[in-house]
Amino acid sequence: MDESIFHRFNDIEIKEIAPGFLSKLIHTEANTINFIDVKAGSTVPRHQHIQEQCSFLIEGEFELTINDIPQILNPGLFAIIPSYVWHSGRAITNCKLIDIFNPPREDYKNL
Amino acid sequence: MDESIFHRFNDIEIKEIAPGFLSKLIHTEANTINFIDVKAGSTVPRHQHIQEQCSFLIEGEFELTINDIPQILNPGLFAIIPSYVWHSGRAITNCKLIDIFNPPREDYKNL
Repeated sequence: MDESIFHRFNDIEIKEIAPGFLSKLIHTEANTINFIDVKAGSTVPRHQHIQEQCSFLIEGEFELTINDIPQILNPGLFAIIPSYVWHSGRAITNCKLIDIFNPPREDYKNL
Repeated sequence: MDESIFHRFNDIEIKEIAPGFLSKLIHTEANTINFIDVKAGSTVPRHQHIQEQCSFLIEGEFELTINDIPQILNPGLFAIIPSYVWHSGRAITNCKLIDIFNPPREDYKNL
């Protein structure tokens, strides 16, 4: 198997990037892709970053607040957050999320 | 709801980008994200493109052949295909796949 191309999720270390946010981070040339298990009730405070962020719920419900307006994401509703837009979040239930960041999150590479 | 940021999967038209490959395509500033249902036995011939491609199986098994070596992707094994690397594929079972392309697939915007 060409390990420059194929990768096992089991080989990726889980990192708690914020309390209750358990991440498997994949850094490519172009993007950082973050497969996250979030515990119900966990929150991430209001923040922004240069990266465009796409957030997809695979399971559960996650409240994403943008410009002070909360919106509940679920597997039928996703978000594309442009660069430098302020946002915060809260897991309503246990969740499985995929976040895609472009460009890569350099700040996540040394966690 | 801010429809510049939040989007419903139900509002995205399904496009058959190749026989048996039923796609919901999301084009952002940075990426094209392709949520695909693939019917068992469907194939995509050997091809290449400028885009880096990340392929994740959500359900099922998909054989991805790179440099003439087949490898079966499943929810535990994913692929990061660099720009211009030749690849082909075949769905072993019915599959749910997420492909992430960077930069966006301009050729998919007018399907």
